[in-house]
Amino acid sequence: MSFADRLLAAVRASKSVAVVGLDPRPDQLPAEFAGGTPADAVAAFNRALLETVAGKCCAVKPNAAFYERLGPAGMVALASTLKSARERGILTIADVKRCDVTDTAKAYAEWCGAWGCDAITAAPWLGADSSLPFVEACNAAGTGVFFLVKTSNAGSGDFQDREVAGEPLFLHVARAVSKWGEGPGAWSPVGAVVGATHPEQAVKIRAAMPRTVFLVPGYGAQGGTAAGVRAAANAKGDGVIAVAGRSVAMAWTREPWKSKFGEAKWREAVAASLDEMNRDLAGAGVAGGWLA
Amino acid sequence: MSFADRLLAAVRASKSVAVVGLDPRPDQLPAEFAGGTPADAVAAFNRALLETVAGKCCAVKPNAAFYERLGPAGMVALASTLKSARERGILTIADVKRCDVTDTAKAYAEWCGAWGCDAITAAPWLGADSSLPFVEACNAAGTGVFFLVKTSNAGSGDFQDREVAGEPLFLHVARAVSKWGEGPGAWSPVGAVVGATHPEQAVKIRAAMPRTVFLVPGYGAQGGTAAGVRAAANAKGDGVIAVAGRSVAMAWTREPWKSKFGEAKWREAVAASLDEMNRDLAGAGVAGGWLA
Repeated sequence: MSFADRLLAAVRASKSVAVVGLDPRPDQLPAEFAGGTPADAVAAFNRALLETVAGKCCAVKPNAAFYERLGPAGMVALASTLKSARERGILTIADVKRCDVTDTAKAYAEWCGAWGCDAITAAPWLGADSSLPFVEACNAAGTGVFFLVKTSNAGSGDFQDREVAGEPLFLHVARAVSKWGEGPGAWSPVGAVVGATHPEQAVKIRAAMPRTVFLVPGYGAQGGTAAGVRAAANAKGDGVIAVAGRSVAMAWTREPWKSKFGEAKWREAVAASLDEMNRDLAGAGVAGGWLA
Repeated sequence: MSFADRLLAAVRASKSVAVVGLDPRPDQLPAEFAGGTPADAVAAFNRALLETVAGKCCAVKPNAAFYERLGPAGMVALASTLKSARERGILTIADVKRCDVTDTAKAYAEWCGAWGCDAITAAPWLGADSSLPFVEACNAAGTGVFFLVKTSNAGSGDFQDREVAGEPLFLHVARAVSKWGEGPGAWSPVGAVVGATHPEQAVKIRAAMPRTVFLVPGYGAQGGTAAGVRAAANAKGDGVIAVAGRSVAMAWTREPWKSKFGEAKWREAVAASLDEMNRDLAGAGVAGGWLA
């Protein structure tokens, strides 16, 4: 079963295209996780968070940066988190944004197997010979890879928007990633990361990649909206999964959930914010076909 | 003391601009390291390798991919390797090629502190806002960062060579990285990765980045030559450090060292191949000013 099929099954089972980011900062966790090492606190919080979001999202997405900054103990916490998610049947996308030259890319392409996750993110700018090893490893194992096509940060235009042969570079990248995923399925096994903060660009990228599932970061805290996610979808509203970072996983620190629940009821705040995100996306017509 | 100053001191102390890649594959190590876990074998081999190359190179460069493929135990081996190098006074460049959007880039920018290394590599294609956190963290800590400008793989031209405003994209990246390192020192605190497999392009990149230290991969096994390294240097031959990967760390598996020493004398093979690399680079005029 391809990763695209597994992802679609998870979307239908959870009735959600939300992807919950797991990017914990040890000093910002609820007080109940204090004591012990920072890495232990992160792993314990993630276990509780996974229990809270199970059934309400199609996947979770830990970003490796927040584990690597804790050194080797942080990587043990990452592996523990991926294991907890697997035990709960929650799909995992490890946001690692790896890239390297061909032979080394093959070593990075072993990531899903080595760490026990369902998909990773990767950077495509080294070219086809250094990106296809990820595709081949994922196709062989039924895991997924999402290549960065257009990132959600304000400065992403510095290089990604530069004009190449009359078009922005990101459209050339989009077509290459689309080609790497050519095949018979309704949805490509090779995904793309397309920031929700650039809706007008997302429309162009969608036209270049009609079969590609987009992992759309930036919803919530980064300023992306449901309309931005919808812009990245196809005519039916399909082909997108949307990441919420701090807006869900840290919901109790943000209004209206801060006043309504506060830290003591952080689980309720997380659940309510995720429910609202799912309603917001559905209201904008996202996944209209997938969930019909 | 800036990383550039520390690196230059290491070059002068070792009389070498060679950087030894530490990218061990557990199934290709000498038999004396068999038994135990793959991660333990890697850590033990690296300790012996560091003992062998100490004083003959300016730095070592473990590539994270070869440790991550072993899961959390591999990351413990990486931390152990970095510690072994530090204890021997050998500078370490962790080849991680990290990149992420602004706030997450700040988490990755903590890498040197969290893992105990002297410098990392990073990918610049997310733009200035996602690259400057690395620069700021490194400047504050006296550690280094080398941004990918032109990679050594055959397919690097797919995107990096595309014409933007009449010039290849890599020259725009080169100028941006050069700007991020502006300041008073003779050498910029912000380095660049420039593949030795593209000498004619390296000349153009050097012209755009006169103060930048280039980390030049591709010497040896990937087909790069001393002339290719020299092409990336300035008029005096300075401003480059050259990575040898398998050609040094796996020297006993390659001719002429395989016949001359073989696996039983793998340390002698490594030392001899590194001595030859240093002679080869000196013969081509590399580091002519630095080592005068």
